[in-house]
Amino acid sequence: MSQTICVINPNTSEAMRQVIEHSCTEVALQDTQLKVVCAPSGVASVEGFYDGALATTGVLKSVQSNPSQGYLIACADDTGLDACREITSAPVLGIGEAAMHTATLLGAGFSVLTAQQKSVHILERNAHQYGFATHCRGVHAMKTPVLDLEKFLEPEWFPVLLERCQQILEQDESEVLVLGCAGLTILQKKLQDALQIPVIDGVRAGIGLIEGLLRCGLSTSKHCTYQPAEDKTTAGEQG
Amino acid sequence: MSQTICVINPNTSEAMRQVIEHSCTEVALQDTQLKVVCAPSGVASVEGFYDGALATTGVLKSVQSNPSQGYLIACADDTGLDACREITSAPVLGIGEAAMHTATLLGAGFSVLTAQQKSVHILERNAHQYGFATHCRGVHAMKTPVLDLEKFLEPEWFPVLLERCQQILEQDESEVLVLGCAGLTILQKKLQDALQIPVIDGVRAGIGLIEGLLRCGLSTSKHCTYQPAEDKTTAGEQG
Amino acid sequence: MSQTICVINPNTSEAMRQVIEHSCTEVALQDTQLKVVCAPSGVASVEGFYDGALATTGVLKSVQSNPSQGYLIACADDTGLDACREITSAPVLGIGEAAMHTATLLGAGFSVLTAQQKSVHILERNAHQYGFATHCRGVHAMKTPVLDLEKFLEPEWFPVLLERCQQILEQDESEVLVLGCAGLTILQKKLQDALQIPVIDGVRAGIGLIEGLLRCGLSTSKHCTYQPAEDKTTAGEQG
Amino acid sequence: MSQTICVINPNTSEAMRQVIEHSCTEVALQDTQLKVVCAPSGVASVEGFYDGALATTGVLKSVQSNPSQGYLIACADDTGLDACREITSAPVLGIGEAAMHTATLLGAGFSVLTAQQKSVHILERNAHQYGFATHCRGVHAMKTPVLDLEKFLEPEWFPVLLERCQQILEQDESEVLVLGCAGLTILQKKLQDALQIPVIDGVRAGIGLIEGLLRCGLSTSKHCTYQPAEDKTTAGEQG
Amino acid sequence: MSQTICVINPNTSEAMRQVIEHSCTEVALQDTQLKVVCAPSGVASVEGFYDGALATTGVLKSVQSNPSQGYLIACADDTGLDACREITSAPVLGIGEAAMHTATLLGAGFSVLTAQQKSVHILERNAHQYGFATHCRGVHAMKTPVLDLEKFLEPEWFPVLLERCQQILEQDESEVLVLGCAGLTILQKKLQDALQIPVIDGVRAGIGLIEGLLRCGLSTSKHCTYQPAEDKTTAGEQG
Amino acid sequence: MSQTICVINPNTSEAMRQVIEHSCTEVALQDTQLKVVCAPSGVASVEGFYDGALATTGVLKSVQSNPSQGYLIACADDTGLDACREITSAPVLGIGEAAMHTATLLGAGFSVLTAQQKSVHILERNAHQYGFATHCRGVHAMKTPVLDLEKFLEPEWFPVLLERCQQILEQDESEVLVLGCAGLTILQKKLQDALQIPVIDGVRAGIGLIEGLLRCGLSTSKHCTYQPAEDKTTAGEQG
Repeated sequence: MSQTICVINPNTSEAMRQVIEHSCTEVALQDTQLKVVCAPSGVASVEGFYDGALATTGVLKSVQSNPSQGYLIACADDTGLDACREITSAPVLGIGEAAMHTATLLGAGFSVLTAQQKSVHILERNAHQYGFATHCRGVHAMKTPVLDLEKFLEPEWFPVLLERCQQILEQDESEVLVLGCAGLTILQKKLQDALQIPVIDGVRAGIGLIEGLLRCGLSTSKHCTYQPAEDKTTAGEQG
Repeated sequence: MSQTICVINPNTSEAMRQVIEHSCTEVALQDTQLKVVCAPSGVASVEGFYDGALATTGVLKSVQSNPSQGYLIACADDTGLDACREITSAPVLGIGEAAMHTATLLGAGFSVLTAQQKSVHILERNAHQYGFATHCRGVHAMKTPVLDLEKFLEPEWFPVLLERCQQILEQDESEVLVLGCAGLTILQKKLQDALQIPVIDGVRAGIGLIEGLLRCGLSTSKHCTYQPAEDKTTAGEQG
Repeated sequence: MSQTICVINPNTSEAMRQVIEHSCTEVALQDTQLKVVCAPSGVASVEGFYDGALATTGVLKSVQSNPSQGYLIACADDTGLDACREITSAPVLGIGEAAMHTATLLGAGFSVLTAQQKSVHILERNAHQYGFATHCRGVHAMKTPVLDLEKFLEPEWFPVLLERCQQILEQDESEVLVLGCAGLTILQKKLQDALQIPVIDGVRAGIGLIEGLLRCGLSTSKHCTYQPAEDKTTAGEQG
Repeated sequence: MSQTICVINPNTSEAMRQVIEHSCTEVALQDTQLKVVCAPSGVASVEGFYDGALATTGVLKSVQSNPSQGYLIACADDTGLDACREITSAPVLGIGEAAMHTATLLGAGFSVLTAQQKSVHILERNAHQYGFATHCRGVHAMKTPVLDLEKFLEPEWFPVLLERCQQILEQDESEVLVLGCAGLTILQKKLQDALQIPVIDGVRAGIGLIEGLLRCGLSTSKHCTYQPAEDKTTAGEQG
Repeated sequence: MSQTICVINPNTSEAMRQVIEHSCTEVALQDTQLKVVCAPSGVASVEGFYDGALATTGVLKSVQSNPSQGYLIACADDTGLDACREITSAPVLGIGEAAMHTATLLGAGFSVLTAQQKSVHILERNAHQYGFATHCRGVHAMKTPVLDLEKFLEPEWFPVLLERCQQILEQDESEVLVLGCAGLTILQKKLQDALQIPVIDGVRAGIGLIEGLLRCGLSTSKHCTYQPAEDKTTAGEQG
Repeated sequence: MSQTICVINPNTSEAMRQVIEHSCTEVALQDTQLKVVCAPSGVASVEGFYDGALATTGVLKSVQSNPSQGYLIACADDTGLDACREITSAPVLGIGEAAMHTATLLGAGFSVLTAQQKSVHILERNAHQYGFATHCRGVHAMKTPVLDLEKFLEPEWFPVLLERCQQILEQDESEVLVLGCAGLTILQKKLQDALQIPVIDGVRAGIGLIEGLLRCGLSTSKHCTYQPAEDKTTAGEQG
C-alpha cells in the first residue's frame, strides 16, 4: 500500500530540512513516499513560544498544501500540533510527542536534551500534557542555538556533548535519552553507541509511529475537539 | 499613576470588541487608559485550536503595535498568552487564566461554561496547566456559536442559560461559575444575581488583576522562558 | 531487513491465539516473521490479578523459548510486561500499553472497554502508571467472560455491544475507543465503521509500534531497572 | 467607591504590624480605607502548625470585630483562611495564596523563601492545595526567626540574603521569587532590584487582588463549603 | 506493656464522647488504658472549617492535659492533627486519616459518607493531602446534623441510610465504605453486615493503628516539621 | 481472641525467614499465632521485576497452603500482593505498603532505603500507586545484594550504612526513614537509635497493622476487584 507522509520542518532552514530528510529516509518503508518540506514562512529556527507561534501559521499552510496520508511536525516543541489535527483527518504527530511516547516503552525514566534553555519549560509542559510528568525526569539544555547543534558531530565537540549527556543521565537516574530538538537527529546513532542506552530521535520514531498507524487504518478522531474548523478567516489574514 | 492597559480581542469581531470594552470600562480605575482593540487579522471568532493558531499572529501584532503597561487577551482560551509574554516585559494575562485564578479564591470548586463543545478540551487543558485540575470540576458548552451568545440576554433565552448553569453547578457540586468565553461577559451580573453565587468574568477580573500587578511594580520575568526572542523571521512572513 | 516478532497470548486458549494471529497478520510487514504462541501453561483466560500472576510464568517462558527481535504480550492487562523486559534486550510491549499510547495520539480523550468488571481496576491502574490518568476518561466492562466475547460479532449481539460503546463514549465525552481485551480484536473494524471514531486494537497497534522501534534500531534499556536478573531460581521452581 | 480592607497580622507583634501596614499603604488605592490590626491574642510569631492553630482564634476574632469589605491575612501560612471565609461574605485572602497566584502569572516557575525550616512543609502543602505543585519548584528557609528577618535590610546582612536567593533560584531554575513570610515584606523592592526578576510580596499583591475583586463585585461563595456556621460554641470557649 | 491512649472528642458533646468510648473499648487491647475525653471548650459539633478552628484549641489543651503514649483525634476532619504532632512525641492520629489509610488496604477504591455537605470539601482535601486522590472515589453527605446521626440506628431510619450507601457505592464503583464522621461509629457493624463490604470506622481503626505503632516503638518524628514549638503565646491568650 | 497470621518470605532463603520471624515475634501480640514461611519455590532473593514474577507463584501457594486470619508478604516490593487478595478474604498486606503508610503518619516526608538499584523503580512505582508520590521524597539503594545486608550490623559496616542514611535524609529533607527491604529488618532499632528519627520496618509495622484490622473485624473487600477468581488453570500449570 503506497502512502505519502509529509514531514514539516516548522522553520525555514533548508539545512535543517535536509538533516531531517536524511533521518526519515533511513527508517521509512519502501512504500512510503516522503515529502519533507520547510514551512513556507516564519522563523529560521524555533526557540521559545514566540518563534513557535510564528512558525505555526507556516506549519498549517504546509499541511494544507501537501495532501498526504500522514504528517510529522519535525520540531521537538510539536509546533501547531493540535491545530493541524483539526484540518486533516490523517494522523498528525509531533517529534517531541513521538520521542517521549517511545522513550516510555523502553526504560523506567527518561531525560530530554534540548538546544536552548528557553525551550526547557515548553518541553516540560508538553511532557506533563502528554502524561509523562513522572516518566520525564528532567529536561536540560546544551545552551547552544538550534542551528549550531551540528558542530557536536565534530571530533572536538562530540565529547562535550557526550559528557553533558552522561551527567544528565546520572543526575536524573534516567534509562533513556530523548533528543529534544530536530537538530540533534544527526547525532542519534553516535550518541546511542557511546551511551549504551536507547537514544530516541523523534524524527525517526515519528515516521515509524505514523506508518504503524496507517497500517492499522487509524486516523485522527473527528468527533469533537479535532472536528474541522469552519472557515472564519477575515480580511488582513495571513498570506 | 497613569497607565495604559491594552485589551486585545483575538478575533476580528467589532461587536465582540464593544462588549469587552464595556465590561473593562466598568471596572477599570480612573487612572487607567483602556485601549481595547481587535486583532488586525485572523478569524471572526475563536472556536478551537485552529482558530486559536490563526488568531495568535494577530494578537502578537496587537501587542507590538500598542505599547502599554499591561495587556489582557480577551479570549477564554488565552490565545497566544505565552508568546506575548516573550515580546514585552509588561504583565500579560488571559481572561481564562484570570477567571480561573479568581474563582479559586472565592469557593471550593468551580465549573466553566463555554460556547462550543470544541473549546471544552482546550479549557480543560488550560485548567490543568494553571494548576486547577482539582479545583475545576467541569467544563461545559452551551453548544452555541460564540457570536450568538448575546441572545441569552433576551427574556426568552435567558432562562435556558440559567437552567443550564444551575444543572452544571449541581452536577459538579461547584460553588463558583466561570464564564469561559468573552462573549458571555455581558451576562455576568444577570447570572450572578440569578444564581446567587460568584460568577466570574475574566474580562473584568483580568483588568483588576493587571491593575493590581502594576500598583505592586510587578512585570513579566525576563529570566529564561520569557526572555525576548531574537529576530529570526524570514521571507514570506506574516503580514 | 527480516525480523521475528513473537506475539504471546498469555492464556492457553488456542481459539484466542488464532484471532490474535489473524489481526497480527493483517498489519504486519511482509518482512516480519510472526510467531504467535500461547503461554505453555497457566490459565484459560486472564481475568484479574490472580489469573495474571499465574499467566506471568508462562509469558516469561514464552519469551525465553522464542528468541525474537521483538515481543508483544497480547493481553490488555500487559501481563508480566516489566518482568519480560528484564530477560531480553529486544523491545517488549503489551497490547494495553500499545493501545493507550496510540489512543492519545488520535483524540483528546479515550475510553476503554474490557470484558469483565474485575479487570477495570487493573486497566485503570495501568493507565495511571503509563501516564494517562487524565487522557483515560473511563474504563468499562461488558460483564462478559473473555472467552465469550466473539458472540458480539453475531448480528443479534453486535447491536448490544454497539449501544454500550455509544453510551460509554457519550458519558465519558471520549473521542477514541480502546479495546481493553485481546478477545475484542476481531471487532475493531466493525466497531470503528459503526462508531465513526478511531477504535484501537492493541494487537494491531502493538505490531506497528514494535516494527517501528526495530526500524529505528531501538531496544530495551539495560541500564538499571531492566538489566538482566541474575539466576537465583531454586529447587521446587516453576515447571 | 469607598471601601475598608482589614489586614490581619495573625501574630501579636506590633513591629510586624507596622511593616505590614507600610507595605499596604504603599499600594492601596486612595479610596481604600486600610485597617491593619494585630490578632488580639495568640503568639508573637507564627512558626509552624501549633503557632498557626493558636493564632487562628485571634484571626477569627479580628474578622468578627472589624467589619470590612475585604480581609487579608498577613501570614504566608494563610492562617485560618478557610475558617474566616465561613464567617463573612467579604473576600478573604491570605498573603501566601496571593503571592503564589501572582507568581504563576509572571514566570514559568517560582521558588519560595521563608524564615524557618518548620514552615517549609506548611508552604509546600499550601502550594499543592492551591494547585501549584508543579509551578512551585522549591520552598527554602533562611533558618532565621521571623522576628529577626529585618536584619537583612542592613548592609552587612543583605548580601547574605541575596546570595541565598540567587542560589535558590539557580538550583530550582525558577523565574520568580515568592517571599514566604510577612516579615520579608520590607525587602521586596531591594531584592527585586538586586535579583532582576519579579519578587512577590503577598502583602502588596494581596491588597491589589482584593481591590480588584471588590471592583468586580465579587464575594466569597456562600453556596456550601463557606456557608455561615451555626453558632454552636459552648461553655469554656475562647475569650 | 501497659500504655495509655487518649482519645479526644474535639467537640463538647458528652453523648458523642460516649459512643466514641464504646467503640474504642470494643477494640482496644486489655493492656491499653483508654482515656476518652471531650475538648474542654469549643463547639457542640464540628461541621466545617470554622467549627474546626474553634475546636482545635480544645484539642490541643486535651493533649497537653492528658499525658499519654498515644492520641487519637475522634473527628473525621482530623481537627488540629498537625498542631498536636508538634506538642508531643507520642503518635497522634486522626480518625479520618486512620479510616482512609485502612480503606486502601482492603479494596480498590473507597467512598466516604459524612454528615453535612459542608464537610465534603474538607474530607476531599484531606484525602488529597493523605495521598488518596485516586483511591477516594467520592465523598458524600447524608445532609444530617452530626448530633442527629444516631437516629439511623432506628428501624425506620436505617433503611434510608442503607439505601444511600448502596447508591453511593454503585455510583462510585467503590469497594469499601469509609464512615466520615465519628457520629457514625455506632453504625459500623450494622452497615458492614448489610452492605457485605468492609465499612471502616476510624475510631476503631485508629485505636488499632496506634497500638500497632506503640508495639513497634514508633513515635512522631521530631526532626523538623513537628519539632516542638517554642513558647511564644502572649497576653490575651486562649483560656 | 486467638488468630493466626501467616508471614510469607517470598524468597527461598531460610536465613531471611529467620530474621523476619525474629522481628515478627518481637511485636506480635501474645494471642497471635505466627507462622513464618518461605515460598516453597522461586528465587533466593527478590531483586527486580523478574525475580518478583517468579516469586509470586510461591507466595500464592503459601497463602493457599496456610489458612490464616491474616497474611503479610515480607518483601518490600509487596510481591504478588493484589493476586493474594483475590484468593482469601483475610486481610493481606505487604511490608512495603505497611511501612510507607506508617511513615506518613509520623512525619512530613519519608525516604526509602533499599538494597539494589534495580528495586528503586519498583518501590517508586508502588509509592505512587499507594498514593505517596508526594510523601515519598526519594528511594535510594545501598547497591548491596539483599542477602548481604546483614553485614551492616557489624561494627565496621554499620557506620557506612549510617552515613548513607544521614546523607539521604539530608538530601531529601525527609523526616522518617523507611527500610525498603526485609533484609534490613534487623537494623531497625540500631538505625533508629542512631538517626533519632522514626525508622520504619515494614515487617514489624505490618504485623501491627494486621492485628489492628483483625481486632476491628475487617477483611478484604470481595465486591469486585478482589472477588475470588474462577478456577481456570490448565495443563502444564505450576507445581
